[in-house]
Amino acid sequence: MAHIAHDPDARPDMRTTHDLRVVLPRTAEVRGDRLFIGGVDVVELAQTRGTALYVMDEAHIRGQLRSLISALRSRYERSEVAYAGKAFTSKAMVALVGEEGGCLDVSSGGELAIARAAGFSMKRVVVHGNNKTLLELVEAIDAGVGRIVVDCFEELERISALATERASTQAILLRIAPGIVADTHEYLQTGGEDSKFGFGIASGAALDAIRRALDAPGVVLKGLHCHIGSQIFALDSFAKAIEVMADLIASVRTETGFITEDLDLGGGLGIAYQAADKPSDVEQFAEVITSAVKREFGARDLPLPLVTVEPGRSIVANAGVTLYTVGAVKEIPGIRTYIAVDGGMTDNIRTALYDARYESILANKADQPRSTLVTIAGKHCESGDVILIDTPLQPAEPGDTLCVFTTGAYNQSMASNYNRQVRPGVVFVKDGIVREVLRRETYDDLMRCEV
Amino acid sequence: MAHIAHDPDARPDMRTTHDLRVVLPRTAEVRGDRLFIGGVDVVELAQTRGTALYVMDEAHIRGQLRSLISALRSRYERSEVAYAGKAFTSKAMVALVGEEGGCLDVSSGGELAIARAAGFSMKRVVVHGNNKTLLELVEAIDAGVGRIVVDCFEELERISALATERASTQAILLRIAPGIVADTHEYLQTGGEDSKFGFGIASGAALDAIRRALDAPGVVLKGLHCHIGSQIFALDSFAKAIEVMADLIASVRTETGFITEDLDLGGGLGIAYQAADKPSDVEQFAEVITSAVKREFGARDLPLPLVTVEPGRSIVANAGVTLYTVGAVKEIPGIRTYIAVDGGMTDNIRTALYDARYESILANKADQPRSTLVTIAGKHCESGDVILIDTPLQPAEPGDTLCVFTTGAYNQSMASNYNRQVRPGVVFVKDGIVREVLRRETYDDLMRCEV
Repeated sequence: MAHIAHDPDARPDMRTTHDLRVVLPRTAEVRGDRLFIGGVDVVELAQTRGTALYVMDEAHIRGQLRSLISALRSRYERSEVAYAGKAFTSKAMVALVGEEGGCLDVSSGGELAIARAAGFSMKRVVVHGNNKTLLELVEAIDAGVGRIVVDCFEELERISALATERASTQAILLRIAPGIVADTHEYLQTGGEDSKFGFGIASGAALDAIRRALDAPGVVLKGLHCHIGSQIFALDSFAKAIEVMADLIASVRTETGFITEDLDLGGGLGIAYQAADKPSDVEQFAEVITSAVKREFGARDLPLPLVTVEPGRSIVANAGVTLYTVGAVKEIPGIRTYIAVDGGMTDNIRTALYDARYESILANKADQPRSTLVTIAGKHCESGDVILIDTPLQPAEPGDTLCVFTTGAYNQSMASNYNRQVRPGVVFVKDGIVREVLRRETYDDLMRCEV
Repeated sequence: MAHIAHDPDARPDMRTTHDLRVVLPRTAEVRGDRLFIGGVDVVELAQTRGTALYVMDEAHIRGQLRSLISALRSRYERSEVAYAGKAFTSKAMVALVGEEGGCLDVSSGGELAIARAAGFSMKRVVVHGNNKTLLELVEAIDAGVGRIVVDCFEELERISALATERASTQAILLRIAPGIVADTHEYLQTGGEDSKFGFGIASGAALDAIRRALDAPGVVLKGLHCHIGSQIFALDSFAKAIEVMADLIASVRTETGFITEDLDLGGGLGIAYQAADKPSDVEQFAEVITSAVKREFGARDLPLPLVTVEPGRSIVANAGVTLYTVGAVKEIPGIRTYIAVDGGMTDNIRTALYDARYESILANKADQPRSTLVTIAGKHCESGDVILIDTPLQPAEPGDTLCVFTTGAYNQSMASNYNRQVRPGVVFVKDGIVREVLRRETYDDLMRCEV
């Protein structure tokens, strides 16, 4: 029965929904007293489809992908955006990425299977994971994936053996641990070597791995990958990583003659979870990335590589909201008021897991100021099952529709059946049309693995 | 890319598997170099069934249930043990609880559906939840469940209305927030009122709820429920809670004439996760509970109630282990050695979520001392995906079978498909026989909700 610490800075506010613009889906608007997304009345959506329900603004997702691809390509022709499927994957999402011209970053055999089922071009798939199983490697090679990012020596040997058995060659990148950890607002150049991911530079593992990859039969080393963190606000962290990678690439050329054709910079672009957050936009991000590559590679007289970035959160997080129905309002005098909703840590583990913070409104009172301070609790048998702690909200009553913003990434994808709760469905909304892409689970689904 | 803090006290040890006795399933034994559970060679099990795999010692589960029921009944005839399904539920588990004479605590419509499918007696079901949905209440009432534990005023009204519509009566308990929070080694008498669960005593909500329940048509108030926390080592916390409840029950009798027939004390009995833990045994627990009830109710001249306890973790946690196959060994000189396995935060979120600690061995080297210090990482694309941090282990190589102990509770039940990882299966082992109770998911399962 953990205590939920009070937030001493929290207070009700007089802001309207419009003042939350930085966290809203692009098409969100208030009509009368109600919130609309994609031209759809979300209160009606909650009532007709039931709650909890994930709602995603399709125009927002497509817009984010297009903006980023365009921001990069207009500055640097040889660039690719590989959507990181771990943020949110479904066949509809994968198909959308393909339509917008993105590549796809998959992190397991399951994500690869979904990409295949969606008809995604296997040549445009990048396969990740620090410990891909032998079966996952077989599946990836046999599917003809474009690139596998190799994370350890054991994996290099396994891929080489599998490709050799098949008399084929597999294009690979090597994951490098660049010794940089990006914090939200700064980067740290120590400690980045302490990671389960990749080959460290300082230890000599990176150079060793490159030599072995160049010698290994069945594989073609195309280049290097690095990933310095998530939810990064300090763009100079990316520039620093590019400098470190350019140093490595130059020294590798000297030592081995190998020319890096592909440079994959991973993901990490930060987004707004709260109204006060000030994330970078994709133009700033693209400018920092592309100018750093040109500068650092130019300074070392290295040929310019194909540059890939792997955004997940920045494509889908703000596109998504979760709708709940308020079930109970429990005012504990002098302590706090709990609003209990029909979901919780099963559909959003981020508050309990990462101490994440969100913004929310009552979608049926979207024109009113958020004049009360409440804690939003889930329905699960655990005291830590809360979604928002000490958050401003319009005065709530049972039956109200709660809308929590910025839940498009790492919510559905991390959902569980704890308490044997069925997981919510996902609908895409666009131009007044509702398209169900994942249906809500049923009790039968909970029992489908019973023997 | 969160840093995984080093444990300054961690060191390799020369202990053998037998020295870990306090965390082992009852039937665990080392034969030659291998670990056996339920008479089954778990290394062979891992090789033939694949990993990750949850293995549960059926004799341990049955033994724990029997011991607790017997420890209580031998001291206090009118007692019941309601297994808390949220720790681990499947039809086989529910059936086993029924066979051993337990009641069942369910915390959602999903758990109730599984109990029904398993043919469990509905009269022996206790329904929990701080915000049961209207549908869940309908399902529970129509199924004829024995008791619903009412958590808030809105729910009391809903049950009353539903039962009245059906011209039936529903037996209920009221969940009381007793103002006590049990810490692992002590209890705190402040702060317990700050909970999303139940009716507070100090605020007057508890007495108000009792009055309203006595007046409400369609419901029969049988008694009160309280739950002071989880993983409790200090048994006097339970005695203190019983004292507080007896005070309330006596004052309620004075104010309203109501005699409490049922006292449900919730769960919370602590168990060992690490070799150094010294949990209470069920005899001590039963002695504290039953003597406190007799003492506190006797002192107030109250009739002795039916006493129910709701253990989950203490029945199944130590019964279960998770088997993994080691995929990679990554030694980062001067920093640490990562052992990567074919599972992680998807099958065990407790390390990341609660900073939980476990013990583990290599099941194929079970006779060797754990002479190295390693960090066990999962396969998922997240730096926080670790299972054990700075833990002693036998020297590991790819292909070894890692066995993590004490994963029978809150592991499978909280599992997710993050990274679209398929969830492991569950086997019960007993007398050399392997019984699959939940099969491993497939890629098709991951897509069954695609529209």
